[in-house]
Amino acid sequence: MNECVFCKIVQGKIPVNKIYEDNEVLAFLDIKPVNFGHTLVIPKKHYEKMENTPDDNLSVVFANAKKMMKAVKEAMSADFVALSVIGIDVPHFHIHLIPRYFNDNMPVFWPRKKYKNGENAKIAEKIKKELT
Amino acid sequence: MNECVFCKIVQGKIPVNKIYEDNEVLAFLDIKPVNFGHTLVIPKKHYEKMENTPDDNLSVVFANAKKMMKAVKEAMSADFVALSVIGIDVPHFHIHLIPRYFNDNMPVFWPRKKYKNGENAKIAEKIKKELT
Repeated sequence: MNECVFCKIVQGKIPVNKIYEDNEVLAFLDIKPVNFGHTLVIPKKHYEKMENTPDDNLSVVFANAKKMMKAVKEAMSADFVALSVIGIDVPHFHIHLIPRYFNDNMPVFWPRKKYKNGENAKIAEKIKKELT
Repeated sequence: MNECVFCKIVQGKIPVNKIYEDNEVLAFLDIKPVNFGHTLVIPKKHYEKMENTPDDNLSVVFANAKKMMKAVKEAMSADFVALSVIGIDVPHFHIHLIPRYFNDNMPVFWPRKKYKNGENAKIAEKIKKELT
């Protein structure tokens, strides 16, 4: 893709702080980190979203993300590493790995809701229908 | 694992709203959803964290999560679906799939920081060292 920022990074046209590179995968520091050491893992091939990434590429990218998680945690002395795929930021499939600290003053997760009686069963059926 | 809540769900000892099940993977509604339709995808085998889940199981779970993402988005008429692995909640590897709406009043992401000059290069080196 000519206009894709991440494709330009893969091609070496935009400089980044590389963490790892092989034939299929590239990992580099996010330039606007949530916490320092925030790393992006991407397939070199352009797929707009996780949803259109073929399963074999998906496997390679997540297996690499798993390795990076450990490295990011150790290097940054993080309490844990959050993995996140948002899907509405840069339109080239990528995984965020964010070193997190119990005292980093960010919520671990979003607030939770409650289902009213029977509502959950109806919703489960709706999702199941979309799967078939 | 005897005491693991998700293992008990796999064994049918705790009822859930199932979305999908095969020999390796189970998907069900989170009982405390961030938004309705919030789905968990887990390997049936007990692995405490993504970091200790073997690559082949990881591949199967993420390939299934990819399929579910589409189904959750369609069924819930979501604007996008966020995928998240936190790693400090229930100690049985699981993926959160959260239907999101542009007007759901939750931030898409956390606030971003900036690196001071040269700090990013140093941090990239530290992470790279941990990978080798």
